Amino acid sequence: MQINIGLIGLGTVGSGTLDILRRNSTLLTRRTGLELNVRRIATKHPHKKRSVPFDSAIVSSDVDALLADPSIHVVVELIGGVNPARDYVLRAIANGKSVVTANKELIAKHGGKIIDAAAEAGVDFLFEGSVAGGIPLLKPLRESLVGNHINKLTGIVNGTTNFILTKMSREHHEFATVLAEAQELGYAETDPTADVDGYDATYKLAILAAIAFGTPVKIDDIYREGIRGVSARDIENARGLGYVIKLVALGRQHGDGQIELRVHPTLLPVEHPLANVNDVYNAVLVQGDAAGEVMFFGRGAGGDPTGSAVVGDIVEAARNISAGVSGRPRPHYHPELRMKDFAEVETRFCVRMQVVDRPGMLAKIATVFGDKGVSLQSIVQQKSDGETAEVFWMTHLTSQRAMGRSLNVFHNLDAVHEISSVLRVEGDVA
Amino acid sequence: MQINIGLIGLGTVGSGTLDILRRNSTLLTRRTGLELNVRRIATKHPHKKRSVPFDSAIVSSDVDALLADPSIHVVVELIGGVNPARDYVLRAIANGKSVVTANKELIAKHGGKIIDAAAEAGVDFLFEGSVAGGIPLLKPLRESLVGNHINKLTGIVNGTTNFILTKMSREHHEFATVLAEAQELGYAETDPTADVDGYDATYKLAILAAIAFGTPVKIDDIYREGIRGVSARDIENARGLGYVIKLVALGRQHGDGQIELRVHPTLLPVEHPLANVNDVYNAVLVQGDAAGEVMFFGRGAGGDPTGSAVVGDIVEAARNISAGVSGRPRPHYHPELRMKDFAEVETRFCVRMQVVDRPGMLAKIATVFGDKGVSLQSIVQQKSDGETAEVFWMTHLTSQRAMGRSLNVFHNLDAVHEISSVLRVEGDVA
Repeated sequence: MQINIGLIGLGTVGSGTLDILRRNSTLLTRRTGLELNVRRIATKHPHKKRSVPFDSAIVSSDVDALLADPSIHVVVELIGGVNPARDYVLRAIANGKSVVTANKELIAKHGGKIIDAAAEAGVDFLFEGSVAGGIPLLKPLRESLVGNHINKLTGIVNGTTNFILTKMSREHHEFATVLAEAQELGYAETDPTADVDGYDATYKLAILAAIAFGTPVKIDDIYREGIRGVSARDIENARGLGYVIKLVALGRQHGDGQIELRVHPTLLPVEHPLANVNDVYNAVLVQGDAAGEVMFFGRGAGGDPTGSAVVGDIVEAARNISAGVSGRPRPHYHPELRMKDFAEVETRFCVRMQVVDRPGMLAKIATVFGDKGVSLQSIVQQKSDGETAEVFWMTHLTSQRAMGRSLNVFHNLDAVHEISSVLRVEGDVA
Repeated sequence: MQINIGLIGLGTVGSGTLDILRRNSTLLTRRTGLELNVRRIATKHPHKKRSVPFDSAIVSSDVDALLADPSIHVVVELIGGVNPARDYVLRAIANGKSVVTANKELIAKHGGKIIDAAAEAGVDFLFEGSVAGGIPLLKPLRESLVGNHINKLTGIVNGTTNFILTKMSREHHEFATVLAEAQELGYAETDPTADVDGYDATYKLAILAAIAFGTPVKIDDIYREGIRGVSARDIENARGLGYVIKLVALGRQHGDGQIELRVHPTLLPVEHPLANVNDVYNAVLVQGDAAGEVMFFGRGAGGDPTGSAVVGDIVEAARNISAGVSGRPRPHYHPELRMKDFAEVETRFCVRMQVVDRPGMLAKIATVFGDKGVSLQSIVQQKSDGETAEVFWMTHLTSQRAMGRSLNVFHNLDAVHEISSVLRVEGDVA
């Protein structure tokens, strides 16, 4: 059976997808018994030269014609962003076509409604490529691990920030310097906000958490903090204490059912499975009640890796069409689970501050922490110029509220010149 | 819809599976819309006390009744071994039931015929639990990575040997000592042959390679060498050179289509993604032409982890039954691919030998290697008692034949007292 595909978008992932379908077509037909035929391609610039060979007769800028073409079974949306992608996807579904996308922002913000629309229309809506590029993740989570209560997800899901943090760590350079280098290499966008401020990671966490915990997730449910505040000094200090700093996306379901979701720079012990995930690599650690810890590791972005995920989804949609079983299973969400109040979320912290170098100063600060309910694990005074000393405080598990209250006191304390950084710590006490 | 399950075998994995189905039944019903009902359990010892609670009325030793029960949709075979498991599985299929198993030996030896029988009967035959326990692997490989030519698989797929090698490495003990400890802890069987001689790993590699390369694999196609010959001295030396020793299962498809399959102790550079996979953990690194390097990591054995994989398969079979699409897709194998002649397989080697400590001896040995076509990368003389010196030879890529011919010369050379070990090396030159 021939399955006709309409491809919208011919950027990095679109070209990668097209190239895989072309160069591995014999393999795909042998494995599936189906012929995957790209019937139409819609792109803003149909006459632009591309690195991938294709039949120019099937390329145009006419998305409407593609969406309306009754011979097309599967629409693949690879333009990214919410508009006009959302409209295209919903129209494709309304026209009875299965849809494959790698659009994390679209799914994170409007996935619930699109999933409902697809279920209603009896078509597939698949988006493996939206999280962690070429790493098989959403399907294994949803299907292979279906028997597990997922207790916790911990991931490095943004390649750009991982590249920057890895480079800062290796070269002892500051964030701004390395960001500029990453931009030159094409690993960071001209406007790097989506990556370095953690938005991209929150989209991906929202998608993962919705699947893992079986509940709709709103972006605003996720605490978000980017990596702009991480300094070479923080990384150096972390190393001395046996930690690396990564932008971690973390989701957890507590015993009472409440969900905790956060994206922030995090100190991980060097023995942590995610600590050695470097450069643009991604990895997600899943903790299931039956499977235990499972980790998925690989390339989180790029035309070929993300194209690999998109092609996997195209094949699934195609198989379902040929078997006449598209649009199943319909997801059954929990009655909406409660998010844990972030003020009550407990983490360990590493606080770096500049304090007046005077006898009794550490005791004074320690007393403030104690009064506010922050239990200290260790204190390291790193250097002093005679007037100002740099001090690192590692805490035991403490609530965000207690830490916030302590910091408020320090902001008004003459003895504390500066709170240089406040970073969270995961993993066992080193 | 209620899906009725017949479970054969109530050992570690059977009990684990039963417990997951019981304790996560609400979750499973919410996620699938199906009720998974264990209708019959067959076990040799139906009256034995078990740690998992279940309705004793459904347990008996009568496998025939289970296989004949028309109300049972899915038969789960968890007794292991070829006989009588093969008979049970084939009868279940003949009776129109989908079958789930975690029986690696059965699949490695008779998988092809069983898969054909299942396709013929239009039922599912699923075996995710047969390789790497709780790690989602076969399904992601077959489905998520369907668009990839798989060039290479490298795995640590046997927990027992990984536990032993990790412990030997940490405690500087010899194999026999650590094996005895592993047996005491229950990590190794009383007869440890299947694990330590590499049979278990070859079964798993046969299953992985058949899926990855799309060709039937015979066990005898796999070169197999266990870990009995690995000494504390080898591990110590490897560490000094920047390597760890692991029992690695490796499959590769060469550019000419030929397949190379081998299981043997292997030196891996410490930066290799598999080098830090320790204790009973398993991991498999898959190299796809599109996805690039993808790694799957987790617990390779145990009732709960393997039960997690079995339950994932039960759900897949159940969903297919409820949708009326069991038994698809039928695998489409290549016309049988050729295995590469092992004599021509090229690897790097690390050879440890005891030689007469006399000037010119190293040059003499190096000349033999050179004459036989073995290119040397480095030579380290580690210690000498004045009469005998221990020498380590690291080679560049060399064929098994060339190494074999060199070793034959050394066996007949008075200057060489002993070839202490011949180990293969993977990964880039350190």
